[in-house]
Amino acid sequence: MSTIGVGILGGGTVGGSLSKRLLDEQDVIALKSGITFEVRRVGVRDLNKERGFTTNEGLLTDDLDRVVDDPNIQLVVELMGGLEPAGTLVERALAAGKPVVTANKELMAARGFDLLKVAGASGVSLLFEAAVGGGIPIIRPLSQSLAGEKITTVLGIINGTTNYILTNMSDAGLDYADVLAEAQALGFAEADPTADVGGGDAASKAAILASLAFGTWVAGDQVYREGIEGLDGADIAFARQLGYVIKLLAVGESSDRGVCVRVHPTLVAKDHPLASVRGPQNAIFLEGPAIGQLMFSGPGAGGEPTATAVLGDMIDAARELLAGTAATPKVQFQPSRLIDFADVATSWYLRLEVDDSPGVLATVAGMFGQHGISIGSVWQEGRGHDATLLIVTHAAPEREMRAALADLEGYGGVTQVAAAIRVYSDDA
Amino acid sequence: MSTIGVGILGGGTVGGSLSKRLLDEQDVIALKSGITFEVRRVGVRDLNKERGFTTNEGLLTDDLDRVVDDPNIQLVVELMGGLEPAGTLVERALAAGKPVVTANKELMAARGFDLLKVAGASGVSLLFEAAVGGGIPIIRPLSQSLAGEKITTVLGIINGTTNYILTNMSDAGLDYADVLAEAQALGFAEADPTADVGGGDAASKAAILASLAFGTWVAGDQVYREGIEGLDGADIAFARQLGYVIKLLAVGESSDRGVCVRVHPTLVAKDHPLASVRGPQNAIFLEGPAIGQLMFSGPGAGGEPTATAVLGDMIDAARELLAGTAATPKVQFQPSRLIDFADVATSWYLRLEVDDSPGVLATVAGMFGQHGISIGSVWQEGRGHDATLLIVTHAAPEREMRAALADLEGYGGVTQVAAAIRVYSDDA
Repeated sequence: MSTIGVGILGGGTVGGSLSKRLLDEQDVIALKSGITFEVRRVGVRDLNKERGFTTNEGLLTDDLDRVVDDPNIQLVVELMGGLEPAGTLVERALAAGKPVVTANKELMAARGFDLLKVAGASGVSLLFEAAVGGGIPIIRPLSQSLAGEKITTVLGIINGTTNYILTNMSDAGLDYADVLAEAQALGFAEADPTADVGGGDAASKAAILASLAFGTWVAGDQVYREGIEGLDGADIAFARQLGYVIKLLAVGESSDRGVCVRVHPTLVAKDHPLASVRGPQNAIFLEGPAIGQLMFSGPGAGGEPTATAVLGDMIDAARELLAGTAATPKVQFQPSRLIDFADVATSWYLRLEVDDSPGVLATVAGMFGQHGISIGSVWQEGRGHDATLLIVTHAAPEREMRAALADLEGYGGVTQVAAAIRVYSDDA
Repeated sequence: MSTIGVGILGGGTVGGSLSKRLLDEQDVIALKSGITFEVRRVGVRDLNKERGFTTNEGLLTDDLDRVVDDPNIQLVVELMGGLEPAGTLVERALAAGKPVVTANKELMAARGFDLLKVAGASGVSLLFEAAVGGGIPIIRPLSQSLAGEKITTVLGIINGTTNYILTNMSDAGLDYADVLAEAQALGFAEADPTADVGGGDAASKAAILASLAFGTWVAGDQVYREGIEGLDGADIAFARQLGYVIKLLAVGESSDRGVCVRVHPTLVAKDHPLASVRGPQNAIFLEGPAIGQLMFSGPGAGGEPTATAVLGDMIDAARELLAGTAATPKVQFQPSRLIDFADVATSWYLRLEVDDSPGVLATVAGMFGQHGISIGSVWQEGRGHDATLLIVTHAAPEREMRAALADLEGYGGVTQVAAAIRVYSDDA
């Protein structure tokens, strides 16, 4: 049995679950892996903060550098989140030849490319299974099992908070604000929900997934994003009538033309496997020419599942340490081949409030036609001055749709462009 | 860019797909992994057999030992299937310090424990992602990502042929023999379907999954198995009325009492995620206290998906070779803790043909009661001499149910025990 000294940065939910697991299940972990982990320091920002877990008092420190520098610590686990000081600490540990396990999606999406280089140069691993999909194993399958596959599409429901909100809006017919308040009360959404509902969290994860799937680095801020804050319950109901559910979907697509990664509310056909992913569950769907379609689903967040992912990485890193391996980088990344988002073609669902007088539909259809956009279906609700047109278009480049929407806004027959939401279809 | 010399044993479907991929996609593989694979020998049993792929004529050989012994070959890929000569060749390659990638579930289930020891002693890897679930990454998630989880349940639909047959029996209301014949004509079932329909293929895969999930080695012949040959279309229809679908389910369960692994036709509740796995698709469902529920689904067979899994393992093995690593064994296995199958408790669905005279139901119920088996629901179809009783029991140990069935067979009021099929319920 080999013992590895561990330093943990961060004392939040995941850090708490991990510390508890390392104590309570030391025997199980040792039996399966042959490794005993000994937590030697836990670095926290505020020593006086009440924590949901107990640890040997002597282990807690607010001197974060000491966690990284302690010669009795061979493995650093970073669970603080955020860019700094996490980034500096991770880089420093790697440069000192200590493998790092992190759950920090924001850091990996922003600086992963450089940090992986530092790890490679030091001959140690930087592992981040917990950064995407919580307890769902997806990083290792993408970077190892599917390393020989030319993956073309990655679709993900990778933010549990927004999926919980959208599921409840759909089930209960409630509005966004009401469901958000309820989610906050139940602990499914944070007091400041911006990172979740604005799509930032999903964008970071999408960047990491796409980078590994396509072998070309995509940074978090290169992901086009729209959140769910503007969603109207009426569109969820209309979408259902048309055979769709609305999800905050992360979409990564790679072709000979290049790569596009985006996160936005999306109409997904009811019979697509992702349509049935409910509540805080996450799911990741992959397509490639040889592999066909794969789907991974499970708990996308939470202390316990995320701690499991961290623990798997820790065992891997420990095995490498014990084998004395200079770990090779797991994926080689090519220069970015991002497509200009204005060229990306998607289908759209539009809800237009119109004055239903003769000629309005013809004019609207003509505006789409001028921009080369063909209409898949039109459905009218109501009559007279309060009529609503629901339109689903075929795939059209973002640039053309933006121009068509501007034309519609400037046309008196259309009272309001009440909603414009992209539709996922694999013929785009 | 580093070049690795590869020897392939086997020239069947997967070998053909792999050879083609290694040629056609050399650039993609090299870009993502930094490795160029060069196939230096392909060992086949019959040089004159027509093959679905072309390879440099000089590469083909029927001297299988030469593939293993060739000093220009650093990595051996075994795709022959069967126990011998595959087992001897794999062991020889490992003993000679060459990593081996195999898709051979039968060999791994029968001799995996010993072969992994040989690999460990030689400091090389024996990788077998392709042995279970075709293109679905499951071996690596189980042995690495979830190494720190105390997994309690593994459920799998891991044989595509039987799932295709069962799906079509259910959809079309056809009988087993008709659907099997159609599956054979379409290439979804082999001319001799025994290994698939008898549950042997699924049992090998279940043994591998359970061994990795529970960290205790389970051999293929320690898996209890029943095939689908005896299934009657009538029971599929009755099951549906009761809210179930019938699947050939692999079930592995681990508790403090021990481990049980079994493969048999099983009634699965319609709303369980596995119930919607259709046709030749495979899916694996895992449960653990921290992770909750995870599901992996995708193509469980076929040359292309399986070749993708093989390729992922090859890249892993090559990275280890290049790093000069003495690879550590990925999982440590504890001595077997198998429960006696007679003690394993499951719920049952029973179809009894009865003579509907007064007192028959009371007598039948009494026979269950004598063996401590409680009845969940009873449903009678028809009346008089041709009545049918459909019974779903609560969980009862195999031993008690066998005794109750023997009593029923010996009782004149029951014309025939027409069906006895286990029900999956997680309260067993």
